[in-house]
Amino acid sequence: MDGQSLIAAASAVGAGLAMIAGIGAGIGQGYAAGKGAEAVGKQPEAQGVITRTMLLGAAVAETTGIYGLVIALILLFANPLLG
Amino acid sequence: MDGQSLIAAASAVGAGLAMIAGIGAGIGQGYAAGKGAEAVGKQPEAQGVITRTMLLGAAVAETTGIYGLVIALILLFANPLLG
Amino acid sequence: MDGQSLIAAASAVGAGLAMIAGIGAGIGQGYAAGKGAEAVGKQPEAQGVITRTMLLGAAVAETTGIYGLVIALILLFANPLLG
Amino acid sequence: MDGQSLIAAASAVGAGLAMIAGIGAGIGQGYAAGKGAEAVGKQPEAQGVITRTMLLGAAVAETTGIYGLVIALILLFANPLLG
Amino acid sequence: MDGQSLIAAASAVGAGLAMIAGIGAGIGQGYAAGKGAEAVGKQPEAQGVITRTMLLGAAVAETTGIYGLVIALILLFANPLLG
Repeated sequence: MDGQSLIAAASAVGAGLAMIAGIGAGIGQGYAAGKGAEAVGKQPEAQGVITRTMLLGAAVAETTGIYGLVIALILLFANPLLG
Repeated sequence: MDGQSLIAAASAVGAGLAMIAGIGAGIGQGYAAGKGAEAVGKQPEAQGVITRTMLLGAAVAETTGIYGLVIALILLFANPLLG
Repeated sequence: MDGQSLIAAASAVGAGLAMIAGIGAGIGQGYAAGKGAEAVGKQPEAQGVITRTMLLGAAVAETTGIYGLVIALILLFANPLLG
Repeated sequence: MDGQSLIAAASAVGAGLAMIAGIGAGIGQGYAAGKGAEAVGKQPEAQGVITRTMLLGAAVAETTGIYGLVIALILLFANPLLG
Repeated sequence: MDGQSLIAAASAVGAGLAMIAGIGAGIGQGYAAGKGAEAVGKQPEAQGVITRTMLLGAAVAETTGIYGLVIALILLFANPLLG
């Protein structure tokens, strides 16, 4: 077994681990969706500002999930550890 | 044991780890569905806007689960680490 | 298998592990988005201060996710453990 | 494989593990942000004291995330286990 | 590979694992910060006692995070397992 293969193998595991960060955005954005639906039900006339605030906050919550995706893509397609 | 086999084996583990991200979308969208059902029960006349807001937010919460699926599919079908 | 390869392989796993910190920001910022949407629905005239407070708090919650990203990038691109 | 390489490899994994502490600060500070946004919506005239209390509490919650970052940086840049 | 190197390597992983305890303090102190901000918004004239109570409780919540930090520092700088 050569060293390059070991690094490539560990990168595959690391890419998978990095995606676990997505758990957070899924829970958080789902909570925002639920609260948004509840608020729209109570004040349908404010649907526009409620939806905008919900999506703005959800976009911020998406960031750390995207960080994980970026690290996974680096490990797979532009791995600096593979010589 | 040759290196290609080690990379393939680690990719199988990595693909499985990446799917763990789906925990988040499952919890979050379930919460949104519950709040949506609750809101429709209270204001049946607002069913349309409530459902639209719920589905919009749930679609955003789906994204990180899809990221995990994409990384898993790459590891399985288009693995750049396998020479 | 040489020592440098082992360190590089472990760094790939460590980078993936570091991203898991992002779970927290995702959940927390999603909660803030939900509460923000709810508050804007009740007091649409206070949308400005609500959104500012939500984004200020979300920025603080982002920090630990960024710490994880920085450690991952150091492990990948400026690894001090690789001789 | 020599002993120093094994220690360096384990340190890379340990640095990644230490960052996971950041999950807590992310969730907690996001909760504070949500409650802060809610409170500002109800009492916009008290925005100053609400934001100060929120940020003071968030600063305390940040500490354990910073402890993890410090341990990770020690493992990477000032590792006492590497002879 | 000698035994002392194996102990040092395991200590690096152990130090990282110990920091994960910080998740609890982060969530708990953030919850306290959110409730504190909420209470200050309702009774701004009681800001002093609310903030003192919040910080007193947060100090207690910090202890387990500090325990993790102490064990990590012992593993790194005063390791009794290394002969």
